[in-house]
Amino acid sequence: MNRKIVIVGGVAGGATAAARLRRIDEHSHIVMFERGAYISYANCGLPYYIGGTIKDRSKLLVQTVEGMTARFGLDIRTLTEVVRINREQKTVTVRHLPSGDEYEESYDTLILSPGSKPIVPPIPGLAESTYFTLRNIPDTDKIYTFLEDHQPQNATIIGGGFIGLELAENLVDRGLNVTLVEKSPQVMAPIDREMAALVHKELKRKGITLYLNDGVKAFEEQGKQMILESGTSISTDLVVLSIGVTPENTLATLAGLETNERGGIIVDDHLKTNDPFIYAVGDAVQVKDYQFGQPTMIPLAWPANRQGRLVADHIYGKDVRYNGTLGTSIAKIFDLTVAATGKNEKQLKAMGLPYEAIHIHPGSHAGYYPNASPLSMKLLFHPVEGTIYGAQIIGKEGADKRIDVLATAIKGGLTVMDLPDLELAYAPPYSSAKDPVNLLGYVASNIVEGEVKVVHWDEMDEIANGAGMILDVRTSKEFNNGAIRNAVNIPLDDLRNRLNELPNDESITVYCQAGLRGYVATKLLEQHGFRVKNLEGGYKTYSSVMSDLKELQTEQA
Amino acid sequence: MNRKIVIVGGVAGGATAAARLRRIDEHSHIVMFERGAYISYANCGLPYYIGGTIKDRSKLLVQTVEGMTARFGLDIRTLTEVVRINREQKTVTVRHLPSGDEYEESYDTLILSPGSKPIVPPIPGLAESTYFTLRNIPDTDKIYTFLEDHQPQNATIIGGGFIGLELAENLVDRGLNVTLVEKSPQVMAPIDREMAALVHKELKRKGITLYLNDGVKAFEEQGKQMILESGTSISTDLVVLSIGVTPENTLATLAGLETNERGGIIVDDHLKTNDPFIYAVGDAVQVKDYQFGQPTMIPLAWPANRQGRLVADHIYGKDVRYNGTLGTSIAKIFDLTVAATGKNEKQLKAMGLPYEAIHIHPGSHAGYYPNASPLSMKLLFHPVEGTIYGAQIIGKEGADKRIDVLATAIKGGLTVMDLPDLELAYAPPYSSAKDPVNLLGYVASNIVEGEVKVVHWDEMDEIANGAGMILDVRTSKEFNNGAIRNAVNIPLDDLRNRLNELPNDESITVYCQAGLRGYVATKLLEQHGFRVKNLEGGYKTYSSVMSDLKELQTEQA
Ligand SMILES: Cc1cc2nc3c(=O)[nH]c(=O)nc-3n(C[C@H](O)[C@H](O)[C@H](O)COP(=O)(O)OP(=O)(O)OC[C@H]3O[C@@H](n4cnc5c(N)ncnc54)[C@H](O)[C@@H]3O)c2cc1C
Ligand SMILES: Cc1cc2nc3c(=O)[nH]c(=O)nc-3n(C[C@H](O)[C@H](O)[C@H](O)COP(=O)(O)OP(=O)(O)OC[C@H]3O[C@@H](n4cnc5c(N)ncnc54)[C@H](O)[C@@H]3O)c2cc1C
Ligand SMILES: CC(C)(COP(=O)(O)OP(=O)(O)OC[C@H]1O[C@@H](n2cnc3c(N)ncnc32)[C@H](O)[C@@H]1OP(=O)(O)O)[C@@H](O)C(=O)NCCC(=O)NCCS
Ligand SMILES: CC(C)(COP(=O)(O)OP(=O)(O)OC[C@H]1O[C@@H](n2cnc3c(N)ncnc32)[C@H](O)[C@@H]1OP(=O)(O)O)[C@@H](O)C(=O)NCCC(=O)NCCS
Repeated sequence: MNRKIVIVGGVAGGATAAARLRRIDEHSHIVMFERGAYISYANCGLPYYIGGTIKDRSKLLVQTVEGMTARFGLDIRTLTEVVRINREQKTVTVRHLPSGDEYEESYDTLILSPGSKPIVPPIPGLAESTYFTLRNIPDTDKIYTFLEDHQPQNATIIGGGFIGLELAENLVDRGLNVTLVEKSPQVMAPIDREMAALVHKELKRKGITLYLNDGVKAFEEQGKQMILESGTSISTDLVVLSIGVTPENTLATLAGLETNERGGIIVDDHLKTNDPFIYAVGDAVQVKDYQFGQPTMIPLAWPANRQGRLVADHIYGKDVRYNGTLGTSIAKIFDLTVAATGKNEKQLKAMGLPYEAIHIHPGSHAGYYPNASPLSMKLLFHPVEGTIYGAQIIGKEGADKRIDVLATAIKGGLTVMDLPDLELAYAPPYSSAKDPVNLLGYVASNIVEGEVKVVHWDEMDEIANGAGMILDVRTSKEFNNGAIRNAVNIPLDDLRNRLNELPNDESITVYCQAGLRGYVATKLLEQHGFRVKNLEGGYKTYSSVMSDLKELQTEQA
Repeated sequence: MNRKIVIVGGVAGGATAAARLRRIDEHSHIVMFERGAYISYANCGLPYYIGGTIKDRSKLLVQTVEGMTARFGLDIRTLTEVVRINREQKTVTVRHLPSGDEYEESYDTLILSPGSKPIVPPIPGLAESTYFTLRNIPDTDKIYTFLEDHQPQNATIIGGGFIGLELAENLVDRGLNVTLVEKSPQVMAPIDREMAALVHKELKRKGITLYLNDGVKAFEEQGKQMILESGTSISTDLVVLSIGVTPENTLATLAGLETNERGGIIVDDHLKTNDPFIYAVGDAVQVKDYQFGQPTMIPLAWPANRQGRLVADHIYGKDVRYNGTLGTSIAKIFDLTVAATGKNEKQLKAMGLPYEAIHIHPGSHAGYYPNASPLSMKLLFHPVEGTIYGAQIIGKEGADKRIDVLATAIKGGLTVMDLPDLELAYAPPYSSAKDPVNLLGYVASNIVEGEVKVVHWDEMDEIANGAGMILDVRTSKEFNNGAIRNAVNIPLDDLRNRLNELPNDESITVYCQAGLRGYVATKLLEQHGFRVKNLEGGYKTYSSVMSDLKELQTEQA
């Protein structure tokens, strides 16, 4: 039974598979090839080493070759690149990089976990600039050394995904002036535009110069001057490209393994490629969307680890399958946590699915206990069935907890009507007697059950242009501090006495600060015969995205 | 349709019902009687006002009579006690406490949310002592005023439930010497003995004198001297009784509503009593256990709030039911968070159910990112089906998150085999690529799937007395710092080379610090033909409960 298993890539997917393979079978020969000098490193920690939050470089090495060899009896060969898969012979051709020597290694089963690589677009002049990408330890060392040696002042990050933003934060932590350039209208693709407004605000508050809707056209003056598509010219000492990753699929395509149009290796539910002796996992593969089953690619650490474990099991005959990726993600953006799970509104729109969206702003824990901070939560769901499609949460505290609860609810097949029934832990330092997730459930099920009709932030401008009355039920003080155009103010607690001021012949759109008082007013008015809808999310959601959009317009003008 | 609904009790259950009733029906007459001066206060915040964490007393008042009247058009009558329910007439007799005037008020529907009251046992001499209980604002004011006026030095808490412990912490925060007396062998009934060991340690570390397995026999010397059942005599300036609560059921029993043997008002799935016009909610009622359906009583804020909401819905004809209480609970105990959901081991034993238990000690987030702290997690599950029975988590950070995920998993009907599949949010500041909940799932499913056999901390003494070899696979340094009696040390990474030192003819119990290396060793040895089991939870679980038990014995000797 001395099976021989060869693994390409010694980090998240590869090392996890190796460890599990050995636990299952003490007698197999497990060879793990890694072209870099390190295995099992913490890719996710790299930005924090650059910024100095992680001080000790060795902490990035979760395991070492010696450590893993001793513990798991593995045959680990670093600085050794697999250059070809010879499927007929069931061998791989490998090159020992320091010597250049090539040799063949046979396998019974081959596991590919080669990861992905940063996309480097062909920007004119880029080659002359001081540019970096960040994927592994050598990349990190390069950036770190450059920062130490040259003490640069101005850095530019191209691409506002989570790696770019984490790096931006870490460069600010080191005292650099950071400019961030993002081609789309918002940073952080997993969240929607109005949620991203909160991130934009945080980035600006921390001194980052933000260019949205703009791309890099060229580098001039030996790469020191960066020219944007808008014409803006920015002088920069270093550039980090973080516009995304693409599967490391050279081996796979050379060997004729099937890949999709974006280069992702195609695998079945058992993570097997079209060659029955070859599995592939991690960033390099195309996976099934957990909720809808369509193919997708989600280069994150949880899927890589999970898949590595499952492949080992499947190789040893266990009846396991990968159920698909939900795409739960999270990032610390300065003082904020930004988290998402499932589908966002952009995706639901693109898929043409019927959906409803709500926004609420509860406290992270009971308001009477010190240091509660507001959460901004968005929930997407089927307007009739209540199926949970996705959630987005931003806040200083407790966002990670609520996104995990919602990710679990999705995997448990719960609907929005089940969320009020979640019995979550409550004591004042942790939550409220109705947890924010319960509140999401109440607010969403009121819509599903027809208890209230709502409008959304992006419908308000049209309404303000004449589609009925807009009623602000906040206090006059709140109203005077800023309100929606053409709104009339009657504070909620006066409303019962001032019903005669309201029109019977036109629709009324009510709003308050966060949505709750507007909801109470809506229920009240409806029962007095008025045609009424509530602006869900309230002035808070509306005004934050509106002012972000306006700032952007002004800056671009 | 002008329905008249009368509510007894104006706090968690009562006020929530009132608010929802009004949102559903603008035209009903809603009368809310509260015998105290305040409605809608934050019972859960009371200990923190006493300790000074909450500085502003008005923060305890979530809503005021004026506020709720204006917003919801309620007829709120405070300082008015309902003294009798006249079921035939469908009226209540109420007494205005300041004047003593009594009158009758009719109802179409009556909702009881009278809460519970602290148990005050008949301890000889108690009446002469300076003793307090803590339930409401006046109780709080009394304790607060006593502390301010007398600046006492020594306080005794009787009862180690969460209210007692929260108070203990808050009195320590105020600089008092605090003694805690608990009749059972551990504090915090929702968790098991070995988990409580961690809490005992924290309490002692913070200077609290702990008497377990001991009760108060009497007070002597005008209540200044407290005599325990063990004979110990303690001098104390004040005493707080927090040995539990009992339903406030005087009204209900007087009116002939059914109650259980512990006094809880019996209600059906719609929270209706045996009188079709009377509902009851909150601390005062007997509920159904969410998991097993048996009757139980769980006096917490989430159930009261949830039930208040559901009763309002049911009154208005909605087809809703209360699905039972799972009993998720949490408390901050100084620097620790202690959280639990579902059943504990004591309950499963008493129910005679087959179960398996595991303990793991993962970091709250990735170890390479600063300030991760260990979590101690216990999971209870069906050994064959994998049904999740319950969980207990203690740690400085992230315990609340994981208990909420597990409570959600239980409500979603997930098994331990589903936990590795939970796609939880990972970035270094928040978690690890395998979240602690995923790890619980891996460890538990390895047992369910027969991948490993385990023993538990409480079996080790017997094993050490001769039931086979005990093998410590930690490093020799760890071993020398303390090990299990009669254990032999072979570090995991040397094991493959030293198999010849192990016996083929007797069983081997392996252990390491936290359980992981022991598991790896168990898999290794098993495949080399040894009969081997792993001490789940490792030396960490074992030694912490053992040293706690030993200290207790020494103290009592
Ligand atoms: C800066 C950064 C931050 C991140 N932060 C997060 C985060 O917070 N949360 C999160 O979920 N994910 C994060 N990720 C993503 C996560 O690290 C990846 O999803 C995960 O590492 C993918 O695992 P993998 O095994 O597919 O690839 P990798 O972990 O990248 O491992 C692939 C390995 O294969 C080697 N290799 C490739 N081809 C060959 C070959 N032909 N021969 C030999 N060796 C080869 C490579 O050298 C590489 O070491 C981050 C990634 C980066 C770069
Ligand atoms: C110190 C403390 C800390 C707590 N901490 C937590 C925690 O962290 N987490 C948690 O989940 N739970 C906690 N609780 C428990 C939680 O507060 C209760 O479970 C919840 O308040 C119960 O709601 P209820 O409506 O049943 O009763 P209550 O909220 O107690 O309200 C009952 C009201 O009814 C009134 N009443 C009773 N009889 C009559 C009558 N005949 N006529 C008129 N009025 C009457 C009472 O005066 C009282 O105000 C805590 C409780 C206390 C005391
Ligand atoms: C270091 C590495 C090789 C470890 O792989 P691993 O051994 O599978 O993972 P862990 O150390 O988390 O241990 C998990 C295993 O131990 C078991 N385990 C964990 N805690 C346990 C405990 N207390 N008791 C018993 N078993 C335990 C689990 O059941 C699991 O074993 P199984 O797969 O056989 O069921 C791999 O995770 C790695 O390379 N990580 C770094 C790279 C990376 O992930 N980068 C991206 C994120 S930055
Ligand atoms: C203050 C109190 C009367 C509020 O009751 P409430 O109005 O039901 O509760 P909330 O303020 O949380 O609001 C929840 C309601 O607002 C809705 N809501 C909340 N946020 C909303 C938003 N952003 N948009 C729209 N609706 C919202 C919910 O759907 C729910 O309404 P519904 O029941 O009609 O579905 C009651 O909670 C109370 O007395 N609390 C203090 C006592 C207590 O609980 N003590 C124990 C714990 S310390």
